[in-house]
Amino acid sequence: MQGAVLYGPRDVRFEEREVPKIMKPTDAVIRISSACVCGSDLWPYRGVQQTTQPTPMGHEYCGIIEEIGRAVNTIKPGQFVIGSFFASDNTCPTCQIGYQSSCQHRELVGGAQAPFLRVPLADGTLVATSDVPSEDLVPSLLTLSDVMGTGWFAADAANVKPGSTVAVVGDGAVGLLGVLSAKQMGAKRIIAMSRHASRQKLAREFGATDIVTERGEEGITRIKELTNGIGADSVLECVGTQESMMQAINSTRPGGYVGFVGVPHGVSLDLEQFFYTHVHLHGGPAPVRRYLPELIKLVLDGNINPGKVFDLNLPLDQVAEGYRAMDERRAIKTLLRPNGTR
Amino acid sequence: MQGAVLYGPRDVRFEEREVPKIMKPTDAVIRISSACVCGSDLWPYRGVQQTTQPTPMGHEYCGIIEEIGRAVNTIKPGQFVIGSFFASDNTCPTCQIGYQSSCQHRELVGGAQAPFLRVPLADGTLVATSDVPSEDLVPSLLTLSDVMGTGWFAADAANVKPGSTVAVVGDGAVGLLGVLSAKQMGAKRIIAMSRHASRQKLAREFGATDIVTERGEEGITRIKELTNGIGADSVLECVGTQESMMQAINSTRPGGYVGFVGVPHGVSLDLEQFFYTHVHLHGGPAPVRRYLPELIKLVLDGNINPGKVFDLNLPLDQVAEGYRAMDERRAIKTLLRPNGTR
Repeated sequence: MQGAVLYGPRDVRFEEREVPKIMKPTDAVIRISSACVCGSDLWPYRGVQQTTQPTPMGHEYCGIIEEIGRAVNTIKPGQFVIGSFFASDNTCPTCQIGYQSSCQHRELVGGAQAPFLRVPLADGTLVATSDVPSEDLVPSLLTLSDVMGTGWFAADAANVKPGSTVAVVGDGAVGLLGVLSAKQMGAKRIIAMSRHASRQKLAREFGATDIVTERGEEGITRIKELTNGIGADSVLECVGTQESMMQAINSTRPGGYVGFVGVPHGVSLDLEQFFYTHVHLHGGPAPVRRYLPELIKLVLDGNINPGKVFDLNLPLDQVAEGYRAMDERRAIKTLLRPNGTR
Repeated sequence: MQGAVLYGPRDVRFEEREVPKIMKPTDAVIRISSACVCGSDLWPYRGVQQTTQPTPMGHEYCGIIEEIGRAVNTIKPGQFVIGSFFASDNTCPTCQIGYQSSCQHRELVGGAQAPFLRVPLADGTLVATSDVPSEDLVPSLLTLSDVMGTGWFAADAANVKPGSTVAVVGDGAVGLLGVLSAKQMGAKRIIAMSRHASRQKLAREFGATDIVTERGEEGITRIKELTNGIGADSVLECVGTQESMMQAINSTRPGGYVGFVGVPHGVSLDLEQFFYTHVHLHGGPAPVRRYLPELIKLVLDGNINPGKVFDLNLPLDQVAEGYRAMDERRAIKTLLRPNGTR
């Protein structure tokens, strides 16, 4: 088969790879229906994170079970499944509490930008739909594997409740789906911070009530003007830089909540300053597995349509263009279809 | 009158000061029943925090209203009152949310180690008891002004619930009252980290079920052994150093909560590391005013006896010895009685 492999900064190749096989009895191999490029793939693509050896790319996936290991009990070949980027056993004490992305036996899933993918700990990681869904639902179901689950976790970690005032820092796909999540959770006012017309438009479609284009001190002032002078109840940090984190914390009211899901790169927090903000801070890699059943239902029932974040739809063999378009911010998010699927 | 004034490192003097007067119509002046020395008074006492001019000391207080400004409506002379170390209007949006220690008009109260004290924003800051309490209840009521309110906030910020497993970092008066608070909130297991026999004893009296004497990596390992291998649900950070903060975070389970109330001194947090812990972090100066009515009732009903933290009882004119004993860890906390009170 052929799949995407990253060799170094801005060097993604579509090349021959071995077809994945069952390696452990708890594995499954799935035939990918759709994959995509994640904002976090851009860190190594841009060289911010080093690539030490050719790396098969992609960790967002959904598809049809092709084969299962002999210890797999809850899913079977032919089922349509979605899983998280972290494989988890879903039985350890940490999983039981709902933090499957900190599972004591977690493994990163990798190489999903390909026709086939091996998923470890299949019983604990994959969730099957009752029927194979229609093609038009696949993009939305695919987002649940990471980007939508991550936006949802950002809103949940930021304690969004019915009636909340919410601000979202970051207008990438995660931030936009954070807007959608906050709307679904009943937020009354949702302020999206964005300077890009196309992203502002999608933010509004997803439920944003206000757009703030200012950044830094001006952005904070603007958000305070919109929130009774004190800041938002909940702020979603969906970038991962020092600037975005300080933007988030300083836009939050005393006693308010920051949910942070942008993987922090070189971000440090002065705890004496933070102490006097009275802000709650929670984040990390989203425990996607916890949310999958609920989010699958929301998609299948037609309540949410997170697949709208895909504004570039490419056959898998054009994966390199998919990365380029996201790197240059020409695309919000790239959907990739292996040959043989639409 | 004579009161305590700090001149510089380890130089507390008991000397003549002007009797405080009503300066604004919203002020009250109270006759101090009891005052005490706070752990945070030791930062300037030890020179960790600079003293630029002679500073009247003390911010924990209770007593009888002597005089009120003409705009004070809810309290009257002769009433017994307790207030927070931060004066607050209790009406601004931040106060309404319960974060009175971030009140938009907050003022630090100072100079309580004296026979009389001016309290700004008296209506918003002070809570009166229905009757003047008996002498034996005064030490416990005094703790509500800061140290008990702070221990309570630590437990609340750390999300202690019935059945929780809790660890407490710091065996000072705040940490010990954090133990008491966790017990009162229904925690099932309370692990106190302490190496001092007298403090371990009081921790057990207050409800600690386990004592951990190890620190650093060993302390973390010990706590994980006691908590299903994953760490405590809730950890109270009651010190404020880099070591104590990392001890707290690394002793918490994924998805667990750290409540931090030790004023951080030179503490910084690497957010990439913190991201992967999945810990919730919340703290700050305790919003004592929010808790006062509930805690006053708990003391008056005999449900809690936080005054036990005072293991040194001195007349006010021996205030310098009160500081020395705490600095040298000979005393957990010093109670100070102005002349004329027992």
